[in-house]
Amino acid sequence: MGRVTARRRVHHVTTGDAVARPDTLVVEEPLEIRVNGAPITVTMRTPGSDVELAQGFLLTEGIISSREDIVSVRYCRGAPVPVPESLRSSPPEEQAANTYNVLDVTLAHGVPTPDVDPTRNFYTTSSCGVCGKASLDAVRLISKHAPGDDPATVTAETLSALPDKLRDAQKVFAATGGLHGAALFGTDGTELVVREDIGRHNAVDKVVGWALENRRIPLGDTVLLVSGRASFELTQKAVMAGIPVLAAVSAPSSLAVDLASQSGLTLVAFLRGDSMNVYTRPDRVKN
Amino acid sequence: MGRVTARRRVHHVTTGDAVARPDTLVVEEPLEIRVNGAPITVTMRTPGSDVELAQGFLLTEGIISSREDIVSVRYCRGAPVPVPESLRSSPPEEQAANTYNVLDVTLAHGVPTPDVDPTRNFYTTSSCGVCGKASLDAVRLISKHAPGDDPATVTAETLSALPDKLRDAQKVFAATGGLHGAALFGTDGTELVVREDIGRHNAVDKVVGWALENRRIPLGDTVLLVSGRASFELTQKAVMAGIPVLAAVSAPSSLAVDLASQSGLTLVAFLRGDSMNVYTRPDRVKN
Repeated sequence: MGRVTARRRVHHVTTGDAVARPDTLVVEEPLEIRVNGAPITVTMRTPGSDVELAQGFLLTEGIISSREDIVSVRYCRGAPVPVPESLRSSPPEEQAANTYNVLDVTLAHGVPTPDVDPTRNFYTTSSCGVCGKASLDAVRLISKHAPGDDPATVTAETLSALPDKLRDAQKVFAATGGLHGAALFGTDGTELVVREDIGRHNAVDKVVGWALENRRIPLGDTVLLVSGRASFELTQKAVMAGIPVLAAVSAPSSLAVDLASQSGLTLVAFLRGDSMNVYTRPDRVKN
Repeated sequence: MGRVTARRRVHHVTTGDAVARPDTLVVEEPLEIRVNGAPITVTMRTPGSDVELAQGFLLTEGIISSREDIVSVRYCRGAPVPVPESLRSSPPEEQAANTYNVLDVTLAHGVPTPDVDPTRNFYTTSSCGVCGKASLDAVRLISKHAPGDDPATVTAETLSALPDKLRDAQKVFAATGGLHGAALFGTDGTELVVREDIGRHNAVDKVVGWALENRRIPLGDTVLLVSGRASFELTQKAVMAGIPVLAAVSAPSSLAVDLASQSGLTLVAFLRGDSMNVYTRPDRVKN
């Protein structure tokens, strides 16, 4: 699996016994994302689908809103690579062998270069402080694709079947136990794309980046499934991509539910077996 | 539990059935940390132990190295609060009712104000780029308290008992299913402190901040247990605090193992039942 997994020696200990053996780990490496030459963030990620990751990050942070806002993405010390065609023509092995950890994104003429504010961590682009503001207003981004009007519906039965589909597709997790997964499905349960990463937000950015490359933004009529919890950050990413239904295997946070409520997103959590909690817009879940 | 949990209405759905009921969620709110008046980060955290969180963050990011490096910590619109005495004298209920989400930290004379570099996200303070550098060198901080020489040992039996102790202490997790836990133990298994947060890094920062307030840095002869995975970031925090043994219930990443190896930290993962994997410095684990 190229740079996605690594082998390390391990001492496996059970009380009263210990054996040394090799072990397969998920790889974690830094990726610096630059926009028009200026560094804007470093994320600790699992290598692979880096261009999707960068594009998804820029979309979910509100820096771009469509595929046309990007001219090119290239690795810092590699040759310029138009996106996405050239990347598709290079074999996965070759990408996996690339050790570069910096991506330069060139925006189209007229797309404003983001104003990097280190204190915001991209949770907001406004200049207001967190202090004295309602929490949600202080950190939320404005989405051009908020899903409030999306007429999509999905059956509880379809939702119940999604976690098994994600698990079946999570190949690296099966090998290492160390990866978060994110998967996009049609509301009929059709699997569209699955991505894994050591960072849950990166897995979602890769899925959204895939959608951007395939000109599917806003992502109407889809369900985004995440393998862990539904935090504010993941919920914001779903809203920014126009996804109408976010489903999580584990718990949501208070701010995630508040943001989903304000944005018209259907938030499903504790999706386990044939049981689930629908926190917002339950009208989209048919039973 | 004050601002730590929140109640929201939920539709509980099982295939063929749906009921509306209230649900308890973990609270997630932004905390802006300022140093000498300048904002340096915003973290999405679960309110509570905010001063510990800020202090632990500054220590594990290498901005301070002892309790004496901090003069005061105060909420943005609250009265100045010396640390830690006054905070201890205010009842938990009063702190819980405080809605402020900004903490100002004043450093002692002679302690350099951190140079905020938005591209580094505090993973490094050097000016080198990630590109062309070995991943570990590019992102690691230099610890004054690296645990390499710590002669601590711990038995496999003691380690095996820790996850149950953490789970017993995780009261909010039991209520919401939504929190990461971090706990510090003596190498004899004595529980020193347990903290919870929606962010795993925040839970560790709160534990380290507790140790800083109690003048226990470097944290020799201790075991830090985390409820999830051992990422690079968590491993770095353990190294910065001088903790000799980091134990995780789930998987480690490749970079976590590499950093532990270089720093002389004992990294234990997949700590489940009487079984565990010891990735580095197995000499500290006695069987």
